[in-house]
Amino acid sequence: MEKLVSLAKRRGFIFQSSEIYGGINGFWDYGPVGVELRNNIKSFWWQRMVRLRDDVVGVDTSIICHPQTWVASGHVASFSDPMVDCKTCKGRFRADHIEAIPCPQKPSLTVQACAGDKKGPGELTEVRQFNLMFETFVGALRDDSARAYLRPETCQSIFTQFKNVQIVSRQKIPFGIAQIGKSFRNEITPRNFIFRSREFEQMEMEFFVKPEEPEMQKWYEYWVAERFQWFQDLGIKPDKLRQRVHSQDELAHYAKGCVDVEYQFPFGWSELEGIANRSNYDLSQHIKTSGKDLSYFDETTKEKYVPAVVETSLGVDRTLLTVLADAYAEDVVEGEERVVMRFSPAVAPYKVAVFPLSRKLAEPAMALEKSLRKRYVTDYDDVGSIGKRYRRHDEIGTPLAVTYDFQSEEDKQVTVRDRDTTKQERIAIDRLEDYLKDHLKL
Amino acid sequence: MEKLVSLAKRRGFIFQSSEIYGGINGFWDYGPVGVELRNNIKSFWWQRMVRLRDDVVGVDTSIICHPQTWVASGHVASFSDPMVDCKTCKGRFRADHIEAIPCPQKPSLTVQACAGDKKGPGELTEVRQFNLMFETFVGALRDDSARAYLRPETCQSIFTQFKNVQIVSRQKIPFGIAQIGKSFRNEITPRNFIFRSREFEQMEMEFFVKPEEPEMQKWYEYWVAERFQWFQDLGIKPDKLRQRVHSQDELAHYAKGCVDVEYQFPFGWSELEGIANRSNYDLSQHIKTSGKDLSYFDETTKEKYVPAVVETSLGVDRTLLTVLADAYAEDVVEGEERVVMRFSPAVAPYKVAVFPLSRKLAEPAMALEKSLRKRYVTDYDDVGSIGKRYRRHDEIGTPLAVTYDFQSEEDKQVTVRDRDTTKQERIAIDRLEDYLKDHLKL
Repeated sequence: MEKLVSLAKRRGFIFQSSEIYGGINGFWDYGPVGVELRNNIKSFWWQRMVRLRDDVVGVDTSIICHPQTWVASGHVASFSDPMVDCKTCKGRFRADHIEAIPCPQKPSLTVQACAGDKKGPGELTEVRQFNLMFETFVGALRDDSARAYLRPETCQSIFTQFKNVQIVSRQKIPFGIAQIGKSFRNEITPRNFIFRSREFEQMEMEFFVKPEEPEMQKWYEYWVAERFQWFQDLGIKPDKLRQRVHSQDELAHYAKGCVDVEYQFPFGWSELEGIANRSNYDLSQHIKTSGKDLSYFDETTKEKYVPAVVETSLGVDRTLLTVLADAYAEDVVEGEERVVMRFSPAVAPYKVAVFPLSRKLAEPAMALEKSLRKRYVTDYDDVGSIGKRYRRHDEIGTPLAVTYDFQSEEDKQVTVRDRDTTKQERIAIDRLEDYLKDHLKL
Repeated sequence: MEKLVSLAKRRGFIFQSSEIYGGINGFWDYGPVGVELRNNIKSFWWQRMVRLRDDVVGVDTSIICHPQTWVASGHVASFSDPMVDCKTCKGRFRADHIEAIPCPQKPSLTVQACAGDKKGPGELTEVRQFNLMFETFVGALRDDSARAYLRPETCQSIFTQFKNVQIVSRQKIPFGIAQIGKSFRNEITPRNFIFRSREFEQMEMEFFVKPEEPEMQKWYEYWVAERFQWFQDLGIKPDKLRQRVHSQDELAHYAKGCVDVEYQFPFGWSELEGIANRSNYDLSQHIKTSGKDLSYFDETTKEKYVPAVVETSLGVDRTLLTVLADAYAEDVVEGEERVVMRFSPAVAPYKVAVFPLSRKLAEPAMALEKSLRKRYVTDYDDVGSIGKRYRRHDEIGTPLAVTYDFQSEEDKQVTVRDRDTTKQERIAIDRLEDYLKDHLKL
């Protein structure tokens, strides 16, 4: 994990937010190759979940919405972690983690042991609930009427806009509404790099189904299979992925089933995505709280009902961490160790790098790079030896590198080097586009 | 403008946020075609500003960053509007707008006139400054040490990460760093639909230049011309665009020049984008506040300096409103009035619509649509008469509609109808991809 964090910074994938001010815990910035990787992951999801499907449409809703949304969803009342304060050191801790957190004043003891130790400095307050939503005030006043929240999940606005979207899109049930967008949770202990941060981005989809059992179960199973397949199509190694079915006592009271897709991170198997049969709890809550009719009328059967949903919910940042961890490899090339990021071409930040052998060849090499640029995201690199440039692009995960040398002037060929095999081939420039198309499959 | 707002809702471009809860002032949600239009605008900018250029790289930084960022930038001290309260009605108003705002209790009078009227209800408090940044608390405490802000602009993290990005990207000055992301301003009076909202998205680029006059002026003029051209390439009518040079007394004390690109909206000429010569004020402020060295060392000339910047700053939502307003047209087709959104194909939510003449032709028509889908965003529409489907897609702005009819089964041809001319052509199915390529130019 340390190697990954170090490479992520060194190559410009991920920086600590506000590093010059000492950072801010739980917030991260994406650098030049990080933002490309991130956008590629988002596009890969959107393409598969929205653009290639007949039965899912997209939305993009605001991060701050009407606070009643979070009353209806139950977040105001109960989206919280239990916390305790230490009366001596004033530290604040998650009550369910005190057996694992070192005491800030006596790091050899855990918070719990320190408090339990009669000779120790600690005494803990009663457990209190700490709401994880970030609060703010909208408008000129600062009172209860102006209080609002940064959304802790993107899906609730999908529910509140269900009727509007269904009408304008003229979709018939079953159909889905998908969204990519930022969410915020004031985690007491952000951890594991970008895995659990306070600001993160989600890719969520709510699939509305007639609330009857065989139908719900069918779609639930469909989406579990579809989403599990998606990670493999993204290039993730199948043996590092697994499904974990939630046991009955893990489920929310309204949920009828939930499966997590988990990945084997360096810090253990952890949740990437949840696929849940949420019944029609969410829409029913918004109907009750708003007094508005969000039911669906089936023109064919003349039935009216409140649809149930199958939800698929995934974090962009967790997916990106998965892609980084899964792509990371070390091997030996010509007796020299290298680090190589084996990204699938679809998500690699650059698809092709173009190197002039010498800066004297800048003009034709740049012209070649420009000709590729309308179709592919490319990088032009003329710094250091060709070997060093290969290593740099191995670490960035660029699938193919094209070197323009003095011979190219005469034979109109270039050397194409494959990131994974490190094999080199001599390819005619006028065949290069076809070659890239065959090898990148984009 | 009312027509535009109504069409935007009717066709699923833009909804009021949290409509079922009565809405929340200054926040908007994008519907199925709105999100596609929005993503197309962002891609169009990113492609032109980052991917097609050698000298600009991208970042994606967090919305909440270290609060010292906003001390350094001056926002904590002075990003505020002057406000007054009415002692009678308790209304709160922007002090510099009281001559224009109607009194809530006596709408026939303005706030100013009402307060000035001896017989009137109003008496105003002294003017106070109201900071426009949304505040929140990060972590478990709620004191000054935990106070943070939702960023009011995306550019400050570009400055704080300048050194990291320059090192990893190995760019040499002059070069730029670009970002697309959400910003928040607690506007006292959000207005003009999505033009001035409280949550919005920006597309900003900071171009770092040696802080010497001829060089700065050259790049300033370059970016004014480039950005002005960009709007025309986006398809905006040139006669509705103009440049407005800021007068000396409009400029911030550190700025050496600023040009606004303005568009003639239904509510008047208004700012779309600002291009500003900001000197090296921002980096200098962050150097002073953080104590970190953000200067640049030129390897060739062995000079060390704090770079100046030319900033280009644009709102996604304002651009989208411009695209909507500019595309909106009413004309008469075969004696019938229609509304048509004349989007350029690059930004149109759907590029092609496919209609079966009858639902009996669903199978071949769907197969045709699916074959187009990997390359284009398409819509399949089988509801209502062909005429009604044309009208619907005119209002969504789909450039081309393809109808599969009974004749198609035999002659392997389809009817392609052009949104703007409404002309129809019979095209062989196996020539359709080439035809679309020629006409959409994507």
